[in-house]
Amino acid sequence: MHATTIYGTNDVRWEEAPDPRLTTGEGAGLDAIVRVVAACVCGSDLWRYRGVQQVTEPARMGHEFVGIVEQIGERVGKIKVGDFVIASFYDCDMTCENCRNGFSTSCQNVGWWGGRDHAGNAVEGGQGEYVRVPHADGTLVATPGMPTDEQIPHLLTLADVFLTGHHAAVSAGVQRGSNVVVVGDGAVGLSGVLASKRLGASRIVLMSRHEDRQDLGRDFGATDIVAERGEAGVEAVRALFGGIGADAVIEAVGTKESFDQALRSARPGGQVGFVGVPAGGPELPVRQLFNTNVGVRGGVAPVRNYIDELLPEVWSGALQPGRVFDLTLPMSEVAEAYAAMDERRAIKVLLTA
Amino acid sequence: MHATTIYGTNDVRWEEAPDPRLTTGEGAGLDAIVRVVAACVCGSDLWRYRGVQQVTEPARMGHEFVGIVEQIGERVGKIKVGDFVIASFYDCDMTCENCRNGFSTSCQNVGWWGGRDHAGNAVEGGQGEYVRVPHADGTLVATPGMPTDEQIPHLLTLADVFLTGHHAAVSAGVQRGSNVVVVGDGAVGLSGVLASKRLGASRIVLMSRHEDRQDLGRDFGATDIVAERGEAGVEAVRALFGGIGADAVIEAVGTKESFDQALRSARPGGQVGFVGVPAGGPELPVRQLFNTNVGVRGGVAPVRNYIDELLPEVWSGALQPGRVFDLTLPMSEVAEAYAAMDERRAIKVLLTA
Repeated sequence: MHATTIYGTNDVRWEEAPDPRLTTGEGAGLDAIVRVVAACVCGSDLWRYRGVQQVTEPARMGHEFVGIVEQIGERVGKIKVGDFVIASFYDCDMTCENCRNGFSTSCQNVGWWGGRDHAGNAVEGGQGEYVRVPHADGTLVATPGMPTDEQIPHLLTLADVFLTGHHAAVSAGVQRGSNVVVVGDGAVGLSGVLASKRLGASRIVLMSRHEDRQDLGRDFGATDIVAERGEAGVEAVRALFGGIGADAVIEAVGTKESFDQALRSARPGGQVGFVGVPAGGPELPVRQLFNTNVGVRGGVAPVRNYIDELLPEVWSGALQPGRVFDLTLPMSEVAEAYAAMDERRAIKVLLTA
Repeated sequence: MHATTIYGTNDVRWEEAPDPRLTTGEGAGLDAIVRVVAACVCGSDLWRYRGVQQVTEPARMGHEFVGIVEQIGERVGKIKVGDFVIASFYDCDMTCENCRNGFSTSCQNVGWWGGRDHAGNAVEGGQGEYVRVPHADGTLVATPGMPTDEQIPHLLTLADVFLTGHHAAVSAGVQRGSNVVVVGDGAVGLSGVLASKRLGASRIVLMSRHEDRQDLGRDFGATDIVAERGEAGVEAVRALFGGIGADAVIEAVGTKESFDQALRSARPGGQVGFVGVPAGGPELPVRQLFNTNVGVRGGVAPVRNYIDELLPEVWSGALQPGRVFDLTLPMSEVAEAYAAMDERRAIKVLLTA
């Protein structure tokens, strides 16, 4: 088969790779082989592409994919050959206590695409033709039928980006009537707007300086746009909310500046939901949190725990989170996909098989 | 009158001070003069007593008191002369948006005992014979009648310590069936045990190495005691909760070690409620929070917003939070009260008029 490998900064290649095989022996029989139909590039993939994270050895890339099940292990019970499936951006069993608590990203048998499964076996990346899924019954969710081409991008967002935005909104405590500020106008931030709207937020402020993203944000439910940043951004947000700030703030960037913006945009007793991968800090200012009673919750999104709830609305077309994709390329042009996102020529790139 | 003033490290004096007077002129008429019946010493008072916080000029001390209303301003409507009242540990109007949101410690007209009111006028400390209360109708809660001597210590805890423990439990998300860990066996931590029990926690672990505090903790509802600290403490806690940690953790100390203990005692997706005044840090490790989805909420407790809910149970004797007082002294012996708490001869000292 072919798959995507990163070799270093700005060096992503579509190249031949070994076909995955079902495991055998002790503990085996729970996996499945999925033929990838669509995948995409995540903002977090760019950390290595840009050299912010060092690439110490060539690594298989991609953690968002949907596809069709081609083989299953003998102990797989729910997933069937021929199913169209959504994979969460990590592998999980959905039976351990952390999965049952709703936090499958902390599965006691977790594995990561392009890395290792719980048993230490290599697993493929999602930006490739085939992937072995270690816990097929846990990780995969079958759609109600075979989707149309139009449905596929929307379904793919359930693997990560839309449900990461949803996790940010849930972590920020968004509920009916909430005032929300979204810091970050990337695909996750925009997903946070859509998720907040769905959860009943009455006012949603998107902080954005890019017209195309502002437009999509408005379509997703943003009621106000704030283009200012830093001190001026905080003042603009507070002015919208009685001088005190918003009930709920979504932090979807992960930098020192964006965290500061988020914490200061929340009203006393408000809550920041953060899903931007913290790029080496900053640590959170405990005295500021203490003085304001602003809560902080979030992290790596347990999307698998949310798929069952959100899938019906995406399947029906009531929600169209796949509108964050503004460029589609064949998977063999993955290098151009990375470049387009790196150079901000695209919000998010869809890769088709 | 007489009142308590701190002059420097280990130097607290009971001395003559001017009688407070109702304010006059523009914006006046909202205050009341309260004759203090009982007050107490807070763990946070010790920061200055121990020199951890510098005393730059003599300051009036005490922020927890109950008493009887002797005079009221002409615009006071709910509180009456002769009422027995509980004062929150800060002054608030209970009408601004932050107060209405449940966070009266961020009142837009907040004032602090022993400091300044919203208008910049000096206010007395609670460890004295009389206090002027700037927003009598906001800050004060009248009891249903004149309490007995036995009721007074319990009522006094509604000014701060018990409701600070309650705020920690609420901030940690304690609810029916929760597993809870309490880090800190001071009066606030013990109050957190009692509050968690009241909120329906099914298992409450108190981390304590002092037998008398363990005993009171058990009486308040602790089901388990962990005496270990640091790595051994984390392991002992996790062993009690399926290897993953507790749903909710109360942090009632405020040091680097106690925060680390608290964060690592929470299960993935759990929540830390913190009320220990952070003693100059540490900042919170954002990457650790991100990886585990452990949330952090808390701060200076908006006790005034909780008094109405908790007062009936304290008035009836169903809750006896005043058991945290293990030494009672006349207010004139306030210096000995500080020394007893500083030297850990007492958990918390009650001062009587």
